[in-house]
Amino acid sequence: MPEFTQIKLDIDDGIATVTLHRPEKMNAFTRTMMAEIIAAMDAIDADDAVRAVIFTGYGDRAFCAGADLTPEDGAKPFASNEAVDDLSHPLVRDGGGQVTLRLFNSTKPLIAACNGAAVGIGATMQLAMDIRLAAETARYGFVFARRGIVPEACSSWFLPRLVGIQQALEWTYTGRIFDAQEALAAGLVRSVHPQDKLMGEARALAREIGENTSAVSIALTRAMMWRLSAADHPMMAHRIDSRAIYRMARTPDAAEGIVSFLDKRPPEFPMKPSRDMPDFYPWWDEPDYR
Amino acid sequence: MPEFTQIKLDIDDGIATVTLHRPEKMNAFTRTMMAEIIAAMDAIDADDAVRAVIFTGYGDRAFCAGADLTPEDGAKPFASNEAVDDLSHPLVRDGGGQVTLRLFNSTKPLIAACNGAAVGIGATMQLAMDIRLAAETARYGFVFARRGIVPEACSSWFLPRLVGIQQALEWTYTGRIFDAQEALAAGLVRSVHPQDKLMGEARALAREIGENTSAVSIALTRAMMWRLSAADHPMMAHRIDSRAIYRMARTPDAAEGIVSFLDKRPPEFPMKPSRDMPDFYPWWDEPDYR
Amino acid sequence: MPEFTQIKLDIDDGIATVTLHRPEKMNAFTRTMMAEIIAAMDAIDADDAVRAVIFTGYGDRAFCAGADLTPEDGAKPFASNEAVDDLSHPLVRDGGGQVTLRLFNSTKPLIAACNGAAVGIGATMQLAMDIRLAAETARYGFVFARRGIVPEACSSWFLPRLVGIQQALEWTYTGRIFDAQEALAAGLVRSVHPQDKLMGEARALAREIGENTSAVSIALTRAMMWRLSAADHPMMAHRIDSRAIYRMARTPDAAEGIVSFLDKRPPEFPMKPSRDMPDFYPWWDEPDYR
Repeated sequence: MPEFTQIKLDIDDGIATVTLHRPEKMNAFTRTMMAEIIAAMDAIDADDAVRAVIFTGYGDRAFCAGADLTPEDGAKPFASNEAVDDLSHPLVRDGGGQVTLRLFNSTKPLIAACNGAAVGIGATMQLAMDIRLAAETARYGFVFARRGIVPEACSSWFLPRLVGIQQALEWTYTGRIFDAQEALAAGLVRSVHPQDKLMGEARALAREIGENTSAVSIALTRAMMWRLSAADHPMMAHRIDSRAIYRMARTPDAAEGIVSFLDKRPPEFPMKPSRDMPDFYPWWDEPDYR
Repeated sequence: MPEFTQIKLDIDDGIATVTLHRPEKMNAFTRTMMAEIIAAMDAIDADDAVRAVIFTGYGDRAFCAGADLTPEDGAKPFASNEAVDDLSHPLVRDGGGQVTLRLFNSTKPLIAACNGAAVGIGATMQLAMDIRLAAETARYGFVFARRGIVPEACSSWFLPRLVGIQQALEWTYTGRIFDAQEALAAGLVRSVHPQDKLMGEARALAREIGENTSAVSIALTRAMMWRLSAADHPMMAHRIDSRAIYRMARTPDAAEGIVSFLDKRPPEFPMKPSRDMPDFYPWWDEPDYR
Repeated sequence: MPEFTQIKLDIDDGIATVTLHRPEKMNAFTRTMMAEIIAAMDAIDADDAVRAVIFTGYGDRAFCAGADLTPEDGAKPFASNEAVDDLSHPLVRDGGGQVTLRLFNSTKPLIAACNGAAVGIGATMQLAMDIRLAAETARYGFVFARRGIVPEACSSWFLPRLVGIQQALEWTYTGRIFDAQEALAAGLVRSVHPQDKLMGEARALAREIGENTSAVSIALTRAMMWRLSAADHPMMAHRIDSRAIYRMARTPDAAEGIVSFLDKRPPEFPMKPSRDMPDFYPWWDEPDYR
């Protein structure tokens, strides 16, 4: 397990919890935090014991207050210090987007437990997670246009998918801070909880997934839902789900799924994502930065 | 009209009603039912007298309880009994997807009247219908990950379109059974009714369409909405709706539409989809399974 | 500034107001109105003083009652009078779509203040605007199938994006007229107001955008959100937002954004869209009609 300095990673009971952890800085985002989240995801995806991941922020004030505007290392707040002319150069790559693209490729369900202020990248990184819960004290802000920059972390792709283009534009045009109830009404979060119940609710959801389902089924489901919903015709889904049903129907997990259902008992699925993903997975070519 | 053994097809008053009909099996899905739904759709699309289609399940317990897990003919529950290596072989094709792709190509409005349990393919086949009504006793379950398989019937394409990716993932990750009110809150269904009012409400909606609109307009509208909303630029819609407006503006249906409106009387549209679709229709190449 | 005969264009306080203005015709749409809206948008986009645009209709009865069915110049209601065989001929182009495609390319936020009846093109032109407010007396109708034609103005692309395919199909299948509360429940409009408060609310929203944000940020945000949300992979957003963050982070607007935030004072952004858009903008090839 890698050593972390700006996040905490705890794994128990089949659940990985990633806690953004810069207590003196409202968990503000840095290039170091970026690298640590990505490393944590690599460790989590490699660990068959993990069935779901919860992201939260340390303390009760902030999930993440956005990019650190006054970092100790003198880094520019939003972009590399180095000036390059070629905009396809890797130094141009947005750090927030490197995080959300890594989350996009997760094989585990990702749950956001938003415990306080989530501003800028603190808000946009949550968009690539699957299911968002909020504390009653949570606040969100897509403040980019107020800072003279633009929505990042692929949020122009994610946010309209989650809340529709009208709401996405109002939030990014005004840059206003809004509360958990507005996030709930818009469908940004699926539920709002008292601060002291938030993690319990997130863990209950994670356990509900882990205790009832096949890990291989879930890894396939995650990739299929995110990727095939963006296709231009349902045939693209038919090509993949036909293969998945055909291959999975012949596995021990499908046999256990049927027998446990007919026996009315909890399932015990034997297959593991690290070794048992079907031969056609991954079925896509991942586009690169350029 | 083909003979059916696992569904009923009734046509009257301009409305086709397809009833999934396996009383002893909670209308569970089989390869036979698949073939019969497709054959019914072929008959319906060829019949100009049909202005809308209602799908429901026999009895008051189930719309469709999912794939038959213990079929009399010894078929595997989810996939062909025959083993083939080539995943592009037609035997690999998911049966649920063959149904939803046929529904996708319907020229008539499709209304789901969900009268009870709708599980697995019983839930996913409804996603390719246009408008979903539910009885108060309806229940839904995207249970695939609990059975060791994956969401099928192109539901990774349809479900996030209908309810958003967050809700789609929570339902498919947990595999939990949920009720009509949760379906309504999420936008999966547009209304919930007492069991004994369900078919009446569905028929009233079907009649509202049939009595007020041009059948050719509706067939074009259906293809345009489903297909062009998935395009990557509104120009793709402009290319098609420009042609459609230009051609339709010169037809008897458009003349009747204007005159009946100015006369404040119900329209009587003379055109029929079987013979009067405009020359540029269909404008697309349908992708095939491979 | 061009002379207008069927619309009014007023610019003050950083807000352009476009008023559809045919008092004797419920502001019904004509080819002249089409050309005037497009010319107004060209003037608005060229004017750095304009930070947001409000569209409304003259009077308290109608936003726009649809295509003029009995135009004085004898024009066909929905299509060019001239008959051409080649459907890729420019005369075939739908007038409503020429308006919505022009709105799609706006560099300013577009706010609809729907003050009354919005039928046909009166409803569909609003779909390409960013944020829709309605008077309590507003009514909408996607009546095309009742007139023997089809949804136009690229509404097959826009409407399902805004309200989902199920709602889009019910409105276009029935062609029924519905009120502001139904529009609100479906997410077509973001708020409903008493008639005499409507313009005040729209102007308050426009000012909130103008007073707090960088005009260059907003122009970029608008193009990114509409265009990148339709891409098939978040990497497409990453390629653009990486460039935008990298370039903007080095500008006076980003410097002012950070300093004004740290100083807790309103920002004064120096950059102007007419001269300061980053070098990679526009990053897309606009498709043409064919």
